[in-house]
Amino acid sequence: MAKSKSKRIGIFTAGGDCPGLNAAIRGVAKAARRKYGIEVIGIYDGFQGLIENRWRALDWDDLSGILTIGGTMLRTSRTKPHAYQLPGGETIDMTAQAYENYRSLGLDCLVILGGGGTQRNALRLVEAGCNVITLPKTIDNDIAGTDVCFGYDTAVTIGTEAIDRLHSTADSHKRIMVLELMGNKSGWLALGAGVAGGADAILIPEIPFDIEVVADSIRDRDRQGKRFSIVAVAEGAEPRGGFADDEEYEHAGEGHHVGTRVGRRLEVLTELEARVTILGYVQRGGSPTPADRLLATKLGTASADLLAEGTYNVMVASRGEGWKALPLEDVAGERRTVPLDHAWVRAARLIGTSFGDE
Amino acid sequence: MAKSKSKRIGIFTAGGDCPGLNAAIRGVAKAARRKYGIEVIGIYDGFQGLIENRWRALDWDDLSGILTIGGTMLRTSRTKPHAYQLPGGETIDMTAQAYENYRSLGLDCLVILGGGGTQRNALRLVEAGCNVITLPKTIDNDIAGTDVCFGYDTAVTIGTEAIDRLHSTADSHKRIMVLELMGNKSGWLALGAGVAGGADAILIPEIPFDIEVVADSIRDRDRQGKRFSIVAVAEGAEPRGGFADDEEYEHAGEGHHVGTRVGRRLEVLTELEARVTILGYVQRGGSPTPADRLLATKLGTASADLLAEGTYNVMVASRGEGWKALPLEDVAGERRTVPLDHAWVRAARLIGTSFGDE
Amino acid sequence: MAKSKSKRIGIFTAGGDCPGLNAAIRGVAKAARRKYGIEVIGIYDGFQGLIENRWRALDWDDLSGILTIGGTMLRTSRTKPHAYQLPGGETIDMTAQAYENYRSLGLDCLVILGGGGTQRNALRLVEAGCNVITLPKTIDNDIAGTDVCFGYDTAVTIGTEAIDRLHSTADSHKRIMVLELMGNKSGWLALGAGVAGGADAILIPEIPFDIEVVADSIRDRDRQGKRFSIVAVAEGAEPRGGFADDEEYEHAGEGHHVGTRVGRRLEVLTELEARVTILGYVQRGGSPTPADRLLATKLGTASADLLAEGTYNVMVASRGEGWKALPLEDVAGERRTVPLDHAWVRAARLIGTSFGDE
Amino acid sequence: MAKSKSKRIGIFTAGGDCPGLNAAIRGVAKAARRKYGIEVIGIYDGFQGLIENRWRALDWDDLSGILTIGGTMLRTSRTKPHAYQLPGGETIDMTAQAYENYRSLGLDCLVILGGGGTQRNALRLVEAGCNVITLPKTIDNDIAGTDVCFGYDTAVTIGTEAIDRLHSTADSHKRIMVLELMGNKSGWLALGAGVAGGADAILIPEIPFDIEVVADSIRDRDRQGKRFSIVAVAEGAEPRGGFADDEEYEHAGEGHHVGTRVGRRLEVLTELEARVTILGYVQRGGSPTPADRLLATKLGTASADLLAEGTYNVMVASRGEGWKALPLEDVAGERRTVPLDHAWVRAARLIGTSFGDE
Repeated sequence: MAKSKSKRIGIFTAGGDCPGLNAAIRGVAKAARRKYGIEVIGIYDGFQGLIENRWRALDWDDLSGILTIGGTMLRTSRTKPHAYQLPGGETIDMTAQAYENYRSLGLDCLVILGGGGTQRNALRLVEAGCNVITLPKTIDNDIAGTDVCFGYDTAVTIGTEAIDRLHSTADSHKRIMVLELMGNKSGWLALGAGVAGGADAILIPEIPFDIEVVADSIRDRDRQGKRFSIVAVAEGAEPRGGFADDEEYEHAGEGHHVGTRVGRRLEVLTELEARVTILGYVQRGGSPTPADRLLATKLGTASADLLAEGTYNVMVASRGEGWKALPLEDVAGERRTVPLDHAWVRAARLIGTSFGDE
Repeated sequence: MAKSKSKRIGIFTAGGDCPGLNAAIRGVAKAARRKYGIEVIGIYDGFQGLIENRWRALDWDDLSGILTIGGTMLRTSRTKPHAYQLPGGETIDMTAQAYENYRSLGLDCLVILGGGGTQRNALRLVEAGCNVITLPKTIDNDIAGTDVCFGYDTAVTIGTEAIDRLHSTADSHKRIMVLELMGNKSGWLALGAGVAGGADAILIPEIPFDIEVVADSIRDRDRQGKRFSIVAVAEGAEPRGGFADDEEYEHAGEGHHVGTRVGRRLEVLTELEARVTILGYVQRGGSPTPADRLLATKLGTASADLLAEGTYNVMVASRGEGWKALPLEDVAGERRTVPLDHAWVRAARLIGTSFGDE
Repeated sequence: MAKSKSKRIGIFTAGGDCPGLNAAIRGVAKAARRKYGIEVIGIYDGFQGLIENRWRALDWDDLSGILTIGGTMLRTSRTKPHAYQLPGGETIDMTAQAYENYRSLGLDCLVILGGGGTQRNALRLVEAGCNVITLPKTIDNDIAGTDVCFGYDTAVTIGTEAIDRLHSTADSHKRIMVLELMGNKSGWLALGAGVAGGADAILIPEIPFDIEVVADSIRDRDRQGKRFSIVAVAEGAEPRGGFADDEEYEHAGEGHHVGTRVGRRLEVLTELEARVTILGYVQRGGSPTPADRLLATKLGTASADLLAEGTYNVMVASRGEGWKALPLEDVAGERRTVPLDHAWVRAARLIGTSFGDE
Repeated sequence: MAKSKSKRIGIFTAGGDCPGLNAAIRGVAKAARRKYGIEVIGIYDGFQGLIENRWRALDWDDLSGILTIGGTMLRTSRTKPHAYQLPGGETIDMTAQAYENYRSLGLDCLVILGGGGTQRNALRLVEAGCNVITLPKTIDNDIAGTDVCFGYDTAVTIGTEAIDRLHSTADSHKRIMVLELMGNKSGWLALGAGVAGGADAILIPEIPFDIEVVADSIRDRDRQGKRFSIVAVAEGAEPRGGFADDEEYEHAGEGHHVGTRVGRRLEVLTELEARVTILGYVQRGGSPTPADRLLATKLGTASADLLAEGTYNVMVASRGEGWKALPLEDVAGERRTVPLDHAWVRAARLIGTSFGDE
C-alpha cells in the first residue's frame, strides 16, 4: 500500500451523460483515496477540460451524497481530443496538448467514464502516452466486451414506466400508442423497455421493419377484440429500404422523429387513431436504479484496485457477478448491437410481439 | 334506508380518460350499494354505450382492486349525445335515444364522470328528462365551480418527474430543455409542473409569450453561469400575434407541436442547443396519486349521499376539505383558466421564472 | 422597493424535519433577495443555532438544486429557547440569549419553519422582542389555521405506496397486514394513507378503537371470501380504556409499537396470521411531492411579500388556492385533529372501512 | 409443432410470493399456447391446490394485463406435498395424491414457480412420477445454479428506496437509522440494498457481526463530522456468539426483530439516538421492476421451449444473457449464500462500509 501512496490520478466523464456516473466517480475516488491513498483530481467537461486544464482536487465531502444523483458532477462534453473546436468553428488536433496537461499535472493515470466513442478517444490518449482506465457507461448499452453498461437499467426503467402509463390510458380509448425511445444504432433500450412493458410491436435498428407487417399485427389484435396496441420504436429504427420515397412518411413531419412517422403511417394503414410520445432526454435523467448504482460501484471500485497495481490501458468490463479488465484496444471501435437470436428477442416473439419483419 | 332500496342508477365515464376514474367509480358504487342498497349498472364507452345500450351490472367483486388502476374500467369515448357518428361519418342527434335507454333500463339517475365538455353534454340529458349527477375529472383542471379536478394531481406529478429528470441531465451539458405538456385551452398542468419542477420559463395559453423575452431570460441565466434552462410549454401556448408568419417556426415542423417550434426558435435566438420532449399520453396514464384517490373517493361517495336523498342535476364540486353540490346549469359551459394573479403565478414570478411576457 | 433594500432576515427550521423544507427555504430566500433585495442568512439547527449563534449568509447558489431534496439544508433540532439543554443535562431558559443574537445580527425578522410546537416557541421569541414569520410544516398535518401543512402530502404518498405493496402480497396468501404510521396525537397521516390505499380498517388517536370490532370486520371479510385485510394504525391510536391491562397486548413486546400490539391481538382473535410493518422515519424522507413543493413555494414566497411590507408575528397559512397571514398568537398552542365528521372519515365509512368503533 | 399440439400442462406458484410471478406465468402460458398449442391449466394455492384438485384452464384473457402486477394470480401457500396439514393440525404425506391428480388431469408436465424449498418439494413430485420444470423465484436470491432469481431486483429497489429516504431525514438530525430487511439465511437483499443505498454498515447472516465494531465505525463517522449513520440489517444477521446472554439485547424487546435489538445496543454504545424501520412485507409487494419482468419473461418463455421438446425435471436457470436447463436434482437442497469475496462485499469494504467484522 505504501508504494501507491504517492500516486495521483485524474477522472472525467465524456460523451452523453447518464445515470450512474456520480456513483462510479464516488466508487473510484473513495476506494482510491481511502484504501490506497491515491490522490484524485476531477477534470471538468470531459476531454475539453483536459485540454483546457480545468480541474480541482476531489475531497471526501465532494463524494458524499452523490450516489443517488443523476447526471455527472464533473459535467461532460462531446469534445474529442483530435477534433477540438476553435471559436471560429474549425477543429484542430489537441491530443498533444491533452498529454502535455496530463504530464504537467503529474498524473499516473486517467480514469475515463464514457460510451463507445469515448473508448476510441481514450485509446488515442494511450497512443499519445497517457495511462488510461475506462469504465463503460451508456444508456444505449452498446459497448463491446461488457455484459452491460451502467445507465442502461435506469433508462429501461424510465421507458418501461412510460409504456405502463400508456397501457392504462390506451385501454380506455381505442388507439395505437407509439413511444419513441433513444437508440440510434442499437435497439437495446427499445427492446428492454418494450419487452418489460409488454409492447405489442418493437422496432429496432437491427431488424428493418415492414410497416405493413406492423399494421397487420395491429389489425390482428383489433380482430381479437384488443382495443389498443403499443408500439415501441428506437429512434434509429428504419423500414426496409429506408424512409426516402414514401409520401406519407414525408408528410409526418420534420424528418427527425421516426415515432411520428410510424404513427402517421399506422393511422393510414389501420384507420385507427395513433398518439405519439417522444421521451427525449427524460430517458437520460433522474436517480440511477439500484442495479445501476451497484454496477457503477463495482466497476468504479475495481478500477481503484487496478490503479493500485498499475494495470493500465484497460476497460473495466462487467462479467457476471464479477468484472474483468480488457485491453482497451480490443474494445475500442467495436459496437455491441442486439443479436437477432437474443433471449429477449426470442422471448418476445414467442409471446406474440411483432418486430415488423415476419 | 328502506325507501332508497329500490333505486337503480347507471354510471359512465366520458371524454378523455384520466387517473382516478376507477377510484371514483368504486366510491360511487360501493357507497351506493353498501350504504343505501342502490343497484348500480356500469355503462360502457361513455355516451356511446348509453345510446347503444351496452352495460352490465356492477357487483362487489368488480369494485375490488380498482382503486389504484389508471384509465377507466368502463372505458370511455368522445361521443356526444347530440352528434352521434354514423358509420358513414355523418352525425345525428341521439339524445332522445339516450333518454329512451335510460327509461327502459329503469334508472333513477345517471352518474357521469367527465370534463368540461361532458358537463355540457350531461346538461343535454337533463333537458331530455334524465336525472344526472356529475363528477369533475380532467387532467386539465379547468372545470368551473370546483377547487380541483381529479386526474390533475397525477398529471402534475408525471410532468414534474419529467422536469426533475431533465434537470439532472441538463446540468451535465449546456442546453435548453423544452418539455411540452398537455393543456390546449388552460395552462394548469404546465403551471403546476413548471413551478413544482422549478422550470426557468413557463408558457401557458393564458399568457401569450414573446419568444424574445424567453430567449432574454435564458441568455441572462447563461451570463450568470447557469449552464442550462428548462422551459415548460403547454400545448396550447401561443406567441403574441400567433404562430403564422414566422419562417423559423414553420421550419420546425409539422405544425403540431408547439414544443418543437419553441425549441427551434430558442436555438436560433440563443445559439444554444435545445432538446425537446413531448410527453403526450404518458401524462394521462398510471396509478392515481393518493391526492387524486382521496378526491375521487370523497366526490364519489358524496354522490351516493345525493342519490339517496334524491338531489339530482348537480355537479359534485370539491370545496376545501368538503364538497358542494352545484346546479349543473351553473357550471356547464364555463371554463376555469389560470387567473393571471394566481398564487402560483405570483410565486413563480417572485423567484424569477419567466412567463415570456415581461 | 428601495426602502426594503437594507433589510436583513434570518431563516431556520425547527422540530422534526419533513419533505418540502428546502423548497420553502428556496421560496423565502429567492423571493426576498431577488424581488426585494433583502439579505438572507441561514441559521443552523433550529433554535439551537440561534442561541449558539451558528449561521451563514445564503447566496444564490445555495438555493439552486434544493427544490427536490428532502430534509433541510439548514438542519434542525428539537431544542426549545426556554429549555436549552446544558451538557450536564440541565435545561435553562435561553430566550434572552436568542433575542440578543437576533439583535446583534441586525435582523429585521426571523422566518421560522416548524410544526405545532415550533409555533409556540416562535411566539416566545416574539414576546422577547423578535419579529417573526412562521410557515406551517409537518407530516402530521395538525397545525391550526391552515388548510394543510407541507410535508403531509409526501408522507401520505409514502404510506399509500406501502399499502399498495402490501395489497399485492396480501392477496397471494391469507393474511392480516398491519401498517404502523406516524401520528402521535392526530390521525391525519393514517387516515389519508388508509383511505387512499383502501385499507380495510383505520385506527387513529381521535377514534378510540375496540379491537373486537376490528376483528369482527376482518372476520366479516373472511366470510365474504376476501383473503386478506389491511389495517392502517397511527402510532398514537389507543384502544378504548387504554392498553394497560391486557396480557396479550403486553406479550406483543416492547411497549412501543402499537402496530405490533394490534397485530398480535388480531392474530389471537381471528386465528389468521398477521404481519407487521413499522414504516418509521422512512415517512419523513425523500423528495417532496409536487403538491408539497407547490405549497412550500407558495407560502415561502408569500412570506417575502410580508417581509417587504413589514407584516410580522404571523403564520402564513394556506387557504384554498391562496394564503392568509394569521396572528401567531391565534394559532400557537392549537392542535388541529381529525374532525369525526371529516369528509374522508365519512367517505371511508360509506364504503365499509372500519374505524374500530362501531 | 404438430406433435406437441395435444400436450397439456399445469402451472402453479409455491412458497412466499414475490414480484414477477405473474410475468413468469404470462411468459410460460402465452408461449406454450401461442407457439406450441399446449393447453395450460392454472392450479391454485401451490402444492395445496394440486393436492385438493383446485384449478382452472387459463385462457388468453387471463394472461392480459398481468405483466405489471405484483403477487400471484394463482395465489400460493407454504403447503408441502409430504407434510400436508389436516384440520386437526396433524400432517400427512400427500405426495401420492398429488401425483394421482396430476395423472387424472392428463398433464404432461407441471411448471412450478418457487424458491429454494420449492425446488426440493418439486423433486419429490418427480420421484413420485410427475414431469416437472421449475423456475427460480425469490426475493432472497439464494437459489443455487442461477445467476439471479426474479423478485430480487424489485425487493432491492424497495429496500434501496427506503435507505434513500432515511438519508434525507437522517442528515437533518443527528441520528443512527436502522433498517431491517428480509433475509433469514442469506444476506443478498440487505447487501444489495445496503450497497446501492450507501449504507454505512451492512449486517448479514454470512458475516457474524461484533456490535462494538459497528459502534466504532459509527463513532468514527461522528468524529469526522458526519451527522448520521445508516445501518442495513438482514433479519437473519447474528452477532458473533449469538444473541442469548446480553441483557441489553433482551431489553430491546420481543426477541423477533434484530433491527430493534441492534438499534438499542448502538444507542447504548454510541450515546446517539437510533430510529428503527421494519420494512416487513412491503418488500414482497408492488409491481416488478423491468429487470424482474425481463428475467421472468425470459425464463417463462424458455420453459415453453423445454415443454415442447420434452425436456423435463429441470430448473430453468438464468445464465448471463441466456438461460440453461439444470437437472433439478443438482439444485434442490442447495442454498446460494453471499460469498465472502463477492464483488459487492469487496466494493463496499473499499469505500469504507462496515460489515461489523473488522
